[in-house]
Amino acid sequence: MESMMGHGTSAKPLSEQVYSYLWTRIQRGEWREHQKLPSVRTLAAELDVHRLTVFKAYQRLKDEKKVYVKDKSGYYVHPGGRLPFDDLEYPIVSSYVQNSHLSEIHRVPAAYQFSYALLDPNLLPNRYFSAYVKDIFDRYPKVLGTYSTVQGDEELREALAGFFARHHRLHLPADSILITTGSQQAIDLIARVLVQPMDAVLIERPTYSAAIDIFRQQGAQLLPVEIHPFGYDLEQIESYMKRYKPRLFYLNPTFHNPTGYTVPAIQRKQLVELAERYRCFLIEDDPFHDIYFAQQPPAPLYSYSTEGYAAYIRSFSKYVAPGLRIAAVCMQPALMKHLLAVKSLADNGSPLLNQKIFLHYFTSDRLVQHMEKLRIALNVRKSIMEEEMSTTTWKWKSPEGGFNLWVKLPDTVPMDVLLAESIEQSISFVPGAICDPLKESRSWMRLSYSYINEKQLRDGMRLLIQLAGQLEGRNS
Amino acid sequence: MESMMGHGTSAKPLSEQVYSYLWTRIQRGEWREHQKLPSVRTLAAELDVHRLTVFKAYQRLKDEKKVYVKDKSGYYVHPGGRLPFDDLEYPIVSSYVQNSHLSEIHRVPAAYQFSYALLDPNLLPNRYFSAYVKDIFDRYPKVLGTYSTVQGDEELREALAGFFARHHRLHLPADSILITTGSQQAIDLIARVLVQPMDAVLIERPTYSAAIDIFRQQGAQLLPVEIHPFGYDLEQIESYMKRYKPRLFYLNPTFHNPTGYTVPAIQRKQLVELAERYRCFLIEDDPFHDIYFAQQPPAPLYSYSTEGYAAYIRSFSKYVAPGLRIAAVCMQPALMKHLLAVKSLADNGSPLLNQKIFLHYFTSDRLVQHMEKLRIALNVRKSIMEEEMSTTTWKWKSPEGGFNLWVKLPDTVPMDVLLAESIEQSISFVPGAICDPLKESRSWMRLSYSYINEKQLRDGMRLLIQLAGQLEGRNS
Repeated sequence: MESMMGHGTSAKPLSEQVYSYLWTRIQRGEWREHQKLPSVRTLAAELDVHRLTVFKAYQRLKDEKKVYVKDKSGYYVHPGGRLPFDDLEYPIVSSYVQNSHLSEIHRVPAAYQFSYALLDPNLLPNRYFSAYVKDIFDRYPKVLGTYSTVQGDEELREALAGFFARHHRLHLPADSILITTGSQQAIDLIARVLVQPMDAVLIERPTYSAAIDIFRQQGAQLLPVEIHPFGYDLEQIESYMKRYKPRLFYLNPTFHNPTGYTVPAIQRKQLVELAERYRCFLIEDDPFHDIYFAQQPPAPLYSYSTEGYAAYIRSFSKYVAPGLRIAAVCMQPALMKHLLAVKSLADNGSPLLNQKIFLHYFTSDRLVQHMEKLRIALNVRKSIMEEEMSTTTWKWKSPEGGFNLWVKLPDTVPMDVLLAESIEQSISFVPGAICDPLKESRSWMRLSYSYINEKQLRDGMRLLIQLAGQLEGRNS
Repeated sequence: MESMMGHGTSAKPLSEQVYSYLWTRIQRGEWREHQKLPSVRTLAAELDVHRLTVFKAYQRLKDEKKVYVKDKSGYYVHPGGRLPFDDLEYPIVSSYVQNSHLSEIHRVPAAYQFSYALLDPNLLPNRYFSAYVKDIFDRYPKVLGTYSTVQGDEELREALAGFFARHHRLHLPADSILITTGSQQAIDLIARVLVQPMDAVLIERPTYSAAIDIFRQQGAQLLPVEIHPFGYDLEQIESYMKRYKPRLFYLNPTFHNPTGYTVPAIQRKQLVELAERYRCFLIEDDPFHDIYFAQQPPAPLYSYSTEGYAAYIRSFSKYVAPGLRIAAVCMQPALMKHLLAVKSLADNGSPLLNQKIFLHYFTSDRLVQHMEKLRIALNVRKSIMEEEMSTTTWKWKSPEGGFNLWVKLPDTVPMDVLLAESIEQSISFVPGAICDPLKESRSWMRLSYSYINEKQLRDGMRLLIQLAGQLEGRNS
């Protein structure tokens, strides 16, 4: 595992992780004052790391007077080294708890909101919804008094199975579908079923930042796979699969977030073959499938899968109604039963009201009309953003769908400073490093054109370009 | 930790757990064919179990020809012992995935539904809701286009803070409240923040069965604390806290599920003192607080807490509207920030629509009127159930609130057989063993009187009593 660590895929160096592991437990009183701690050899075996790594962690604890050495025989808990338990500045929590970095950015209020890959609420048929929801209550008068089943409303799952068959060449029974509260819950549940601490997980670089955090929280070792305008380097993927036996590959091959790239059909087929050969689950996240500007994207990878080494996560929050938080997971039955067990304990089923509201709108002609307008509106917004950037030296590949532009700025623009100054001007965007499992991509940013109107887009982009220009001038 | 295992608190014997641990990893290819496995000594240290336990697990693997012994030097992976990966009858999933046993019982359809501790949908003001929800859309026209914040709608959190202060002597800022999708999500999130594998956790016996499953899923060692009509044995709790340093005590002290008992005010105060002395978090689940028949129960434990070693989970699904799935968690700020991080990754916030619908109904006069009727209706249903049982030798303590009767049948009635025969007669109930972390309580059952109407209650109880009588006759 050491060589994987060498990639720097972990949040912090391994010896620091071991240090935290020990220090958390000392504070929690698992070892008392003057009690002997596990030997370097035992701990290295237990944690599956090199002895030197454990040694380093102990040295740091020793330097900080949290442990002491006696008779060359080992490390002991230093009296007083343990912090008082009620000093809650050192909260005593599971070491697997991760912060979600994207949600921190999203908490910043901004007039020029380029960080939300979320549909402008003004683009939804809000007036229609008000009368429509009343109909739902008339149709299901007891909907507020009823829990959903854990797997989700059967009527909805049947409707989705029909939709997937008609539109995406995905043929599967309603029992292979689970309804979740948004795709993020789907990723989290899958991670809880499939990933154990120290498991290798392939993840795109860049990718959806919350997915990075979820797999890290689960204790995974992340192996980044670059995504290019043409797709992936399949040889690299095969060599990773061969060498590290990754548990799964989390990927977003259609109008990829954040780059907008789409993996071509031929690679989808090849990827499924690789996954089956090396028994690595492909977890395909596909929120933007229907948000295309000109032509439909290739069918989901899941449609090529025959041996069950794929799962399909389909969020509808991007265009149906974000406020409902409805997503679906498709998965073969042998795994589905485990996913259901975790979902059952996680929240015992998503709210029924939301599923019923979603169901009838999703299957209505109203949505078809709405989608046509939506594609035009989003394409116009994208063009405005690109038009404003055409005066700069910034680089990007124009996407054929989705909500985002992945933009490279000149190296001389310090992204951290640009973000800080932007926030002061009420502009928000996602710095590339947040989308990068290696925390690099420092010249990149994700700009979403989906959330604010055309005038705000133009004004916000001009301000942002001006700010970046000033910083570039200062540093060149 | 061995002595804790001796209590039988774990789902299966420890050596079988070790066996599964090894076999799962062999199947996953963590050790290749003919590769040496960890020594008994190393593995015993790693898993913190006795060497004999590891030895037994290895013996079983050896007997099943999954490993072989060489030169007395150790255990090696047997070639061919490893199952083909695509034999998905042995799904390769995280060993922490637990089944939720209660949800299995709930999946059985039944005309005489005594297993749902859930309000009869006919007792909700359904007609009122239909017009009411339209008002919500008029008030928040973009509610379907908007995500909630991770912590939950601020307007709702302010309203709840006011409610807790007025009704429960709980004074806390809105920032100390998190909105979750039902109380089960709250328990799961708290477990993910506070509990690491092998942590000791105090849990009532009997208790809410999904909580047992959640803490087991997190890898906790459960220490059962008996709940009696008078409350707990505080000396036993103190000795557990002293000896095992439990991370938390999950408890439901008001109209307890399943027994209906209420822990008196004086014990609440003493428990908080114990928790603070031994730094054990009290996780108070309080879904039935407002479902009292005559007089209000004592204030929540949380209201006695000053040092932050308590959290309060308040579900409103029992009487406001189950279909909305709204619960609140109250917790001190230093822990709340970690809970928010986990919630952020788990689903990025509960749906806003549900929070807004809940908010206005919860603060309306309509709910006050509704509660008065509800208390009467539930009390009548409880009396009918008790009246029917008055002809039997069954034993129970009449609860002063809540939805459940905890009933002891004669020892000669085999509960498994009674459940099987009941299900055939379209009667469903919760067998006591499901609520027992020790899986005992075999003469007990939980009967909920909340879900079906008076006639169904009477008919169902007569049938159930008849079935039990026949079984008793057969076995005595």
